[in-house]
Amino acid sequence: MPPASPSKAPPVRVDLLSDTLTKPTDAMRKAMADAPVGDDVFGEDPTVRELEQRVARMFGHEDGLFTPSGSMANQLGIRLHVKPGEELIADSLAHVLRAEMGAAAVLSNISARSWIAPHGELNAAQPLALMIPDGGAYQVNTRLVVVENTHNFGGGTVQPLDQIEALRAGTKERGVAMHLDGARIWNAHVATGVPFETYGRLFDTVSVCLSKGLGAPVGSVLLGSADHMQEARIWRKRFGGGMRQVGILAAAGLHALDHHVERLADDHARARRFAEAAAVARPDSVDPQWVQTNIVLLDVAGAGWTPGDFVTAAAARGIRLYPVSTTAVRLVWHLDVDDAATDLAISELVPLLERGSR
Amino acid sequence: MPPASPSKAPPVRVDLLSDTLTKPTDAMRKAMADAPVGDDVFGEDPTVRELEQRVARMFGHEDGLFTPSGSMANQLGIRLHVKPGEELIADSLAHVLRAEMGAAAVLSNISARSWIAPHGELNAAQPLALMIPDGGAYQVNTRLVVVENTHNFGGGTVQPLDQIEALRAGTKERGVAMHLDGARIWNAHVATGVPFETYGRLFDTVSVCLSKGLGAPVGSVLLGSADHMQEARIWRKRFGGGMRQVGILAAAGLHALDHHVERLADDHARARRFAEAAAVARPDSVDPQWVQTNIVLLDVAGAGWTPGDFVTAAAARGIRLYPVSTTAVRLVWHLDVDDAATDLAISELVPLLERGSR
Amino acid sequence: MPPASPSKAPPVRVDLLSDTLTKPTDAMRKAMADAPVGDDVFGEDPTVRELEQRVARMFGHEDGLFTPSGSMANQLGIRLHVKPGEELIADSLAHVLRAEMGAAAVLSNISARSWIAPHGELNAAQPLALMIPDGGAYQVNTRLVVVENTHNFGGGTVQPLDQIEALRAGTKERGVAMHLDGARIWNAHVATGVPFETYGRLFDTVSVCLSKGLGAPVGSVLLGSADHMQEARIWRKRFGGGMRQVGILAAAGLHALDHHVERLADDHARARRFAEAAAVARPDSVDPQWVQTNIVLLDVAGAGWTPGDFVTAAAARGIRLYPVSTTAVRLVWHLDVDDAATDLAISELVPLLERGSR
Amino acid sequence: MPPASPSKAPPVRVDLLSDTLTKPTDAMRKAMADAPVGDDVFGEDPTVRELEQRVARMFGHEDGLFTPSGSMANQLGIRLHVKPGEELIADSLAHVLRAEMGAAAVLSNISARSWIAPHGELNAAQPLALMIPDGGAYQVNTRLVVVENTHNFGGGTVQPLDQIEALRAGTKERGVAMHLDGARIWNAHVATGVPFETYGRLFDTVSVCLSKGLGAPVGSVLLGSADHMQEARIWRKRFGGGMRQVGILAAAGLHALDHHVERLADDHARARRFAEAAAVARPDSVDPQWVQTNIVLLDVAGAGWTPGDFVTAAAARGIRLYPVSTTAVRLVWHLDVDDAATDLAISELVPLLERGSR
Repeated sequence: MPPASPSKAPPVRVDLLSDTLTKPTDAMRKAMADAPVGDDVFGEDPTVRELEQRVARMFGHEDGLFTPSGSMANQLGIRLHVKPGEELIADSLAHVLRAEMGAAAVLSNISARSWIAPHGELNAAQPLALMIPDGGAYQVNTRLVVVENTHNFGGGTVQPLDQIEALRAGTKERGVAMHLDGARIWNAHVATGVPFETYGRLFDTVSVCLSKGLGAPVGSVLLGSADHMQEARIWRKRFGGGMRQVGILAAAGLHALDHHVERLADDHARARRFAEAAAVARPDSVDPQWVQTNIVLLDVAGAGWTPGDFVTAAAARGIRLYPVSTTAVRLVWHLDVDDAATDLAISELVPLLERGSR
Repeated sequence: MPPASPSKAPPVRVDLLSDTLTKPTDAMRKAMADAPVGDDVFGEDPTVRELEQRVARMFGHEDGLFTPSGSMANQLGIRLHVKPGEELIADSLAHVLRAEMGAAAVLSNISARSWIAPHGELNAAQPLALMIPDGGAYQVNTRLVVVENTHNFGGGTVQPLDQIEALRAGTKERGVAMHLDGARIWNAHVATGVPFETYGRLFDTVSVCLSKGLGAPVGSVLLGSADHMQEARIWRKRFGGGMRQVGILAAAGLHALDHHVERLADDHARARRFAEAAAVARPDSVDPQWVQTNIVLLDVAGAGWTPGDFVTAAAARGIRLYPVSTTAVRLVWHLDVDDAATDLAISELVPLLERGSR
Repeated sequence: MPPASPSKAPPVRVDLLSDTLTKPTDAMRKAMADAPVGDDVFGEDPTVRELEQRVARMFGHEDGLFTPSGSMANQLGIRLHVKPGEELIADSLAHVLRAEMGAAAVLSNISARSWIAPHGELNAAQPLALMIPDGGAYQVNTRLVVVENTHNFGGGTVQPLDQIEALRAGTKERGVAMHLDGARIWNAHVATGVPFETYGRLFDTVSVCLSKGLGAPVGSVLLGSADHMQEARIWRKRFGGGMRQVGILAAAGLHALDHHVERLADDHARARRFAEAAAVARPDSVDPQWVQTNIVLLDVAGAGWTPGDFVTAAAARGIRLYPVSTTAVRLVWHLDVDDAATDLAISELVPLLERGSR
Repeated sequence: MPPASPSKAPPVRVDLLSDTLTKPTDAMRKAMADAPVGDDVFGEDPTVRELEQRVARMFGHEDGLFTPSGSMANQLGIRLHVKPGEELIADSLAHVLRAEMGAAAVLSNISARSWIAPHGELNAAQPLALMIPDGGAYQVNTRLVVVENTHNFGGGTVQPLDQIEALRAGTKERGVAMHLDGARIWNAHVATGVPFETYGRLFDTVSVCLSKGLGAPVGSVLLGSADHMQEARIWRKRFGGGMRQVGILAAAGLHALDHHVERLADDHARARRFAEAAAVARPDSVDPQWVQTNIVLLDVAGAGWTPGDFVTAAAARGIRLYPVSTTAVRLVWHLDVDDAATDLAISELVPLLERGSR
């Protein structure tokens, strides 16, 4: 079912398909097993409340809400700002437009437009030129800009703080809200040193994900004002996201915040190391400067590969990748890929680039 | 936040608010801690697959799909059968119409009508008279009947098997699908001895819940054909219900199936015992014949109480209840309410009925 | 395409399919040809504004809004009162639930439940018992009751004024709004003498239709507060109902208000006359007491007919009818059916009832 | 209510607000008054059928469907191709994304993305690069590209035929449908001489509008396959667009096709004449080469005006305009603006450009 697992392939030795694949560590499993729990649909799970409030404090927001997925956290945040028939804007490869199955239109009847951002990098002038907040009774009103940091399909790109600030200034003037899709905001923080609170205060709502780089099995948290979180709680139930003794999962999130944030630097270093090796072998395949965090987009077209064939060739060597576009494959470093696995990836994949598809 | 927890009340000694409140046992926690997991969004979590397939086999269906809530399982099932602008019908107090926040209209644009079922009990003639499957191009077409077994707001009522069979015969002839909201089908099975497979084969799709009487912390399973489950999997992602290493939770469900089904008979006996004591004290408050499983609807109006005041008075005595209508409160037995707690509930609440509201 | 026009039937001599079939009179065509017009999307059509304001005054409302159909008028009215995920209630054969293609769920994500009303007649106790306006954050909140007067699928039934008043008193107390589907309110007025304003003041919003008994070619008007009409105007555009120089059609409505209201008494008398003849021939086919306006529901099952076969037999005699249920056909009197046509309908159809289906 | 009519302004002498403002001519009124009609909800209005079939033949499509607005025609066309949660793409100023109030998301749960097209002009490479038709079960699938010809907010721009053909070739290969928003396709035909059928055959569905340049009071026609039109007919009813004896309006459309197509060349010549005068006075205000049909976008920022102030100043001189963006106003030529009115517009507005805002 995952796009990159050919049925006849040998066992996966290095799994670079996604950082969603991480499995809970023993210590994390113990934290889950010991967690005090309650019925979170009634707001009575102490571990969930601890996680929600801790993350809210980290980002300078009033309150938080635990959700079963990053998509649900984003979709709840989005609908707080945009009414049916109004509009959000995001770059054309944003997760909210590309990887959430059209949920904003389905769940919340929200219209959308996009601008095209090379490497997914924010240039504030683009959304500011696109938005039309004063459409009145005859045109669609832009109510929200979504910024993804780091940017998944852009290749783990870190958004420039000055551009976020410029966008905030421009949207404030126009009465347009901002939502941060911070599924991988942990990686941005580790790459730049910018405090979480600095990021948090620039947005009206923020979603963060515990099950990607942080290694928790399940869960995201939406952040915003207390009123917004109360409204989001009702919509979470409507979307089918109300869970009961889910402190079991929240405990993994708390553990991850304690133990798995700073280590993301290792993922970044490994991804960069791979990119540098690839660039030496084949300069048109990747520019290491754009490998800012844990994701490598490897352009295999120059070497004569289709992404699908490259993925198959890699799988035959025990390496799992994702064919992300018509020319590139994606490699993602995470908790379960160490230095040795990185070496293996380099030794198996770089020759594929060198020799090309024959 | 839960409707029945006044802030100044003493600690809860007996919690009859809902069977969703059950906490995982130590053995269940161990099963969770030890569960093998994978990324279930890619269909790679072995524990989730084991649970899905096991439940499917129990009910005679091809495949299953794990969901974060019973609401999501119902809503996924519903939309497999009904297209936007078409119609489902259910009784007027069905969970899908009353307690899922209008999700069928919001998520799937499904119209609805209802019939009124005393005690929530199915009388097949009612939905058969209501449905209009051949509305053509000028009227709404009925595509689905939802049956809830046992019926929550009806008071844990078990649906008569002959009525389900009559409905199945009538719907088959008319080309109308049937979905079983089996959140508490375990209770129906234990109360009647009807095999799960007998229930399962009478419906096109079935939802079952692991986090109510069975005591797992989180999770439901939708059942149906393999094609339907594949389609539901895409919509689960769209609804924000795709979770990663959620075998942690599925493990609790597997444990509950092994250990917590037959014990539901104890819950039923305790609920019945309470009802009999209440009926002796105040015959107009409850008819024990309608206490068929683990739920007691107690009419407190005859004793001069409003449900809200009765809930407050009970809370002052350490008993938590839910004000379920304008005349009644609801008491639900579950894994965490034993014989002693039942005695306490009787000794505290029956006098309230006897003396009335003064 | 209409359900009751078999392709091989002889020319239609009496068309009782629906009162939507009326064709504009010469005088009405002249009124249309002479109408001053403007761009109504910009609110600049003087004839449309005249019609909107005139109808608003008639019913004691602040303002009105012209729409291309009665369905759109109803759907705009409904969504003013009910937010996504909230609920309206109506009787199980109400036009808004049966004949608007599920639009409330599709266009506005509104959940619905129904009660069963014999002959479509309002008994206030039924909706008052069904509504749950205080569902809070865990149950669906009832926000609106829709009353249809006269009731189409009920057989043109006039709603008892005292029941509307009782419903208004009960809904006011509970904070629930009321919408009148007054597509045929003209018929109710003519049958009872109750002033339009009396009806109008009992509802928060009202829709009236100019293209049924009144004989205008196209158009309905929604009535309510000025604020509500402004909001409805935006949604009318969103639904695709913004029209330009539509004063052409509004002029027909103004003409109909001047000339075609009181004459509805003739339609009522003719329908009653037919019903009495049918009842003499076959007492189980219709009770003339329930023929209160211009619609006759004729139960043909007692005479051994299926509705479809009866419609075909009638068509073979040049009479067009509508098979309205599994046992009955519907006959509707209107501007284009005079005394002679009524005589013809009696002489052709009563024998079919007498002899039965052989 | 229209954005450009200040309440204190003198009478409008030249109305360039929109080509939707045209009023029916006497001959057109006579055609409406004489039209044979029937109940179009049942498909029985002969004049409507004549119009639908005539337009379908003109564009080489199987059948047509009359609608109350261009928005509804577009929205019906769109939903034939895109299922809930799937995606359409269009340029960022397309009418379907900007001026239909988010209807695709509201009515049909369709997600959208956009590319940025200078002057609204189609460059096939842009949509071809943006679309992702093979998103599978994890990403949104692109199902439709919408092309607007001529392009309203782009300034009446005619789409290059070779670019449409290139897009058609690329979409065919990828299984992506194409819808033509042809509200002003008449203008494109007159400007280029490209036959309607050539345009029509390049698209799966087409909408055309009779109430803009053609001067009919109300109405659009959707074109496509017979199956698609049958499906669209049901959705038209669901959207509230089913009208009865609407042949009255269709007759105006037939008259317009006979008499008002070729005369659009006059509108184009007048718009160009105005643009040339403006460009002489102030070269940065407009490039006459981009005035290809009946619309002039006049950039007033260079002369120091805000669009709002310029509109007010023009209104004070009896000229009505529309402030279309943060720097420009829009002027639209149509049936009710002749050479003298064009002279007046030049003599009143050009000096405003020359002297600037003081």
